[in-house]
Amino acid sequence: MTLRELGEFGFLDRLATGLRAPRDVEVGVGDDCAVVRSGRRRWLLTTDTMIEGVHFRLGWDTADGLGRKAFAVNASDVAAMGGEARFALLSVAVPNRTSAAELERFHRGFVRAAGAAGCALVGGNLSAAPQWMITVTLVGETEYPPLTRAGAKPGDRIYVSGTLGGAAFARSLLLAGRRPPPSVSRPWRRPTPRLALGRMLAARALASAAIDLSDGLIQDLGHVCRASGVGAEVEASRVPLAAAVRTQRPGRRLALGFAGGEDYELLFTVPRARLARLDRTARVSGRRVPRLTAIGEIVSGAGVSVLDDRGAAVEIAGGFDHYRR
Amino acid sequence: MTLRELGEFGFLDRLATGLRAPRDVEVGVGDDCAVVRSGRRRWLLTTDTMIEGVHFRLGWDTADGLGRKAFAVNASDVAAMGGEARFALLSVAVPNRTSAAELERFHRGFVRAAGAAGCALVGGNLSAAPQWMITVTLVGETEYPPLTRAGAKPGDRIYVSGTLGGAAFARSLLLAGRRPPPSVSRPWRRPTPRLALGRMLAARALASAAIDLSDGLIQDLGHVCRASGVGAEVEASRVPLAAAVRTQRPGRRLALGFAGGEDYELLFTVPRARLARLDRTARVSGRRVPRLTAIGEIVSGAGVSVLDDRGAAVEIAGGFDHYRR
Repeated sequence: MTLRELGEFGFLDRLATGLRAPRDVEVGVGDDCAVVRSGRRRWLLTTDTMIEGVHFRLGWDTADGLGRKAFAVNASDVAAMGGEARFALLSVAVPNRTSAAELERFHRGFVRAAGAAGCALVGGNLSAAPQWMITVTLVGETEYPPLTRAGAKPGDRIYVSGTLGGAAFARSLLLAGRRPPPSVSRPWRRPTPRLALGRMLAARALASAAIDLSDGLIQDLGHVCRASGVGAEVEASRVPLAAAVRTQRPGRRLALGFAGGEDYELLFTVPRARLARLDRTARVSGRRVPRLTAIGEIVSGAGVSVLDDRGAAVEIAGGFDHYRR
Repeated sequence: MTLRELGEFGFLDRLATGLRAPRDVEVGVGDDCAVVRSGRRRWLLTTDTMIEGVHFRLGWDTADGLGRKAFAVNASDVAAMGGEARFALLSVAVPNRTSAAELERFHRGFVRAAGAAGCALVGGNLSAAPQWMITVTLVGETEYPPLTRAGAKPGDRIYVSGTLGGAAFARSLLLAGRRPPPSVSRPWRRPTPRLALGRMLAARALASAAIDLSDGLIQDLGHVCRASGVGAEVEASRVPLAAAVRTQRPGRRLALGFAGGEDYELLFTVPRARLARLDRTARVSGRRVPRLTAIGEIVSGAGVSVLDDRGAAVEIAGGFDHYRR
């Protein structure tokens, strides 16, 4: 069986089952971050890779922007667990012909984005490769119980932050050789890791489960359902779509907004008893926290259903899997 | 200026100078690991990448062996700082056509090597790429002051563990399309991270500086000299060469043993006052610690000199730099 047949997640599932975690590993393989205890502290560990030709193309963004994005997509995993990003390791491979100036701009973009989030670059590695390959490892920290994918219960409300589909829309235009206007390309080029929101959810114990939306709403909500042993019902008309996506024809709107990926917003579930507290907390947090939208409810069973306004099931093409494109 | 002109280390030097490290970062960019304080503990953070076609070719080793090696070359950095390897993150990119069985063998090799060293795989990432790309991040721990590249003083003796040049010899045969016998290929395929030795040096405060030999003796000793603000004199005839390398003609012997790279032995410096203690400790440690050989002395000044038996300078071609081959 090749990876294309098995798929990325099928493979990751198989790997994770064989591992025994030592006692100080609170969360191991299979969540946004691993959680490791160190005395009374908790460290969050996460790593992610961006490869030229697979995740991005040179020329789609400046080197500076690429650096910012490399930090953001990793910080998003720390945000999803409710942590602060503290230390970064940056492993970069580039072709020999790459100019030192370009690599410096990339590095500066990364360090600035990290610095703005209170995160220090403490180590790294540089080597040669046929194309750009960027692997970031972040060490996060939290003093609160971390948000995980497990913990959602029937009756919990499902929330997402910000708007969805914008990144996938920009990406699809870029792939087609078109230059999206800044308002459209921004969500793809400059995702905002929702660190303040994640901290708020963890500090006030508001969410029963959380994940960052990197692979598309349906797929990522599916991860939460599997980890929590529950199902989910999403009301299609409630999902907040990016402005540019709302003007698309219905089928494309759904594909971009529900299965597009790379939005790096947070999806989280909130028990009914904490809904009022979420409202109050979000109100006093003001602009530090993005718009939050309730899009559906956790139910018993398994799988994600998307329902139209009459309660009928809506069919949507699957999310992002590197091995199945 | 391209990277080929500037070189890997020139570039890394430029990057490191611009960084301000927060107070809990004890050692930042530029050593084998970063050192971060967490309460009374110290965490060691390191990352390294192996790329198909740059660092290895498929077919040079089994997938299982590749997994072991990916762990070992990273654990070697933890060893050089005197730490224990605790947690690992594994980011792998492979072509779509890769069989799941092959990737599982790779994974099993990694997990076994990590497990043997007391290290748990806690997270990772899988994506598609034109060729294999393996990035490992290790989190190590130490309760002792970490060994760094800085700290060597004139008069300190220079030691290396094991024998040198074997890995470079095997690699050169593989590159030439020849199949080295197991005794020759072993140092390249199965480097042994010198974790027990590093622990011993740190726990007993025996070494004033240390580094792992990944880029070749001259280059890595040069890193120690620059970080410590000193020079070094190596007695060529004292450098312990791998058996297969000793039979080569003199020029090739020197190139492999002094500039070959990928030996993953430790180089460390020992103040004269601690030489007797090093001897005693190494004796009682028995087989946990490899053979240690004194190869020269730290001197005031700068740079690495290699001297023959009459005290004349020996010329050796430079070490391993990804951008200058």
